[in-house]
Amino acid sequence: MITVLAGGVGAARLLRGMVREVPATQVTAIVNTGDDTVLHGLHISPYLDTVTYTLAGRNDEERGWGLADETWKVMENLERLGGETWFSLGDQDLATHLYRTQRLANGARLSDVTAEIAAALGVEAHLLPMSDDPVRTRLRLAGGPETSFQDYFVRRRHEVAVEAVRFEGASGSEPGPGVLEALDRADVLVIAPSNPILSIGPILVVPGVTEALRARREDVVAVSPIVAGSALKGPADRLLTELGHEASVVGVAQLYAQVAATLVVDDADAGLAAEVEAAGVRCVVAPTIMRAPEDAAALARVVLGVARDWSSSTR
Amino acid sequence: MITVLAGGVGAARLLRGMVREVPATQVTAIVNTGDDTVLHGLHISPYLDTVTYTLAGRNDEERGWGLADETWKVMENLERLGGETWFSLGDQDLATHLYRTQRLANGARLSDVTAEIAAALGVEAHLLPMSDDPVRTRLRLAGGPETSFQDYFVRRRHEVAVEAVRFEGASGSEPGPGVLEALDRADVLVIAPSNPILSIGPILVVPGVTEALRARREDVVAVSPIVAGSALKGPADRLLTELGHEASVVGVAQLYAQVAATLVVDDADAGLAAEVEAAGVRCVVAPTIMRAPEDAAALARVVLGVARDWSSSTR
Repeated sequence: MITVLAGGVGAARLLRGMVREVPATQVTAIVNTGDDTVLHGLHISPYLDTVTYTLAGRNDEERGWGLADETWKVMENLERLGGETWFSLGDQDLATHLYRTQRLANGARLSDVTAEIAAALGVEAHLLPMSDDPVRTRLRLAGGPETSFQDYFVRRRHEVAVEAVRFEGASGSEPGPGVLEALDRADVLVIAPSNPILSIGPILVVPGVTEALRARREDVVAVSPIVAGSALKGPADRLLTELGHEASVVGVAQLYAQVAATLVVDDADAGLAAEVEAAGVRCVVAPTIMRAPEDAAALARVVLGVARDWSSSTR
Repeated sequence: MITVLAGGVGAARLLRGMVREVPATQVTAIVNTGDDTVLHGLHISPYLDTVTYTLAGRNDEERGWGLADETWKVMENLERLGGETWFSLGDQDLATHLYRTQRLANGARLSDVTAEIAAALGVEAHLLPMSDDPVRTRLRLAGGPETSFQDYFVRRRHEVAVEAVRFEGASGSEPGPGVLEALDRADVLVIAPSNPILSIGPILVVPGVTEALRARREDVVAVSPIVAGSALKGPADRLLTELGHEASVVGVAQLYAQVAATLVVDDADAGLAAEVEAAGVRCVVAPTIMRAPEDAAALARVVLGVARDWSSSTR
């Protein structure tokens, strides 16, 4: 059994590689819901959708989000009405949000709805929202008020410096059904190559999650989302710097040192292996850039191999 | 100035005829919002939309609701997810609901949003929700619990007998901005050929509306939605019978006698003119079936002529 802490695109790609290497039913993803948002009255879970669509083979590879073969009738007409269209919602994608919103209004839990959508799309891996309770990532922008993740990320295209991040509702939240069990029982735990602060951070602050990871630290393998000092996607590099961390695999190792015994870094960062290990984290060097599904499968093999090697050598 | 109490398709058609006869800016419609509903998290105002789309020339004539040249991508995908699709929402139409829901969430009033949508679609007539407060039509069905109008009308295709109707929230509601003024100041007041109980009924129970109509009774012209004992569309005939009224122009006259001095009935009901007048309502016989816009314009001329004749003969 493999449990993966998951953010967005990087996590989705690694998961897609993972289910090529092991049966999908043995893979569980605990997905960040800190950037869930309500827009036009609709409950949108961007990361759950990215992971679901990618595992279903329905994601749009080029765009990097949403569904393939998408149409945009609703947005085109919303624009004509003068509505808010900065957060693009495709016609097929909207069906997911309508479904989720109606089910939640009927009293279903987000975890139930997530499983229903995954099943309808033929996804066999287990997708767990980190919590059924609302936890919301809030960012204080330079010279501005606090805002939501989506406002920062999509509307402002993460161009404004971030001064602080907090996770509203986290302290009062409970882990989603199956989350702690998935952490306790997994043979291998993986922290996907997602933004450590905005994507993995919300999961870590759900009460019980960090404690569960610490208890399993030796079995936790993180994959660095930073390659040669840059984020492959999104603002992780700048955000790390803005919040006083080092925008490098060393900074990532320092952030994860309490919860992960191993960090997989890209070949490009081989020269920083000693510094990573100095942070108290075993460093594994491998190709981590997942352009094609084959790359993702290879990275999944590395992660699983690391866990197996460690297990056989020290247990 | 002409003010029309409006339900759905019949009202929309009469209004379309009206704006052919007088400048659209002189026409105000007070529209039933008792069947507004929230579905998939979206605030849907079916009657406001029908009137708006029809006056914009964007309505689908054959289907009788929604927009012309509509596509159904969202519904097709919602069906694949196993979602609720009994209330069909086209892709273009959905943009209206997304816009309305977001604006209401931002604190706008339904009346503001209605004006914005009408303006975006080029509608010059004034469209007023009967109230900005939620008033909800609730129906007790035979042998069943109370349900919403849409559940009765769309989901159950109005096949179940109705035992009682009430308008939840009506007593605490206020007329929408401009509603009482439109009733006070109009030269002619028209009750459109809509379901007297389900479409006009909710407007009449908004506090102040019936009083305002009574004060203007001599200037109020109603058009019967019942022709030869049948509703042209929908369940008005059966509903009248089920609730103890006569499913005829005489029943309509009795229902409106307190608020309308004149009832326009179809040629087919010429034989009932004396009975209508016996109910205390002046009876005008004319073609009332609006197949083409020209029919609607002709009916509008009749209504305006009635008011003018009465005005010149008695004032």
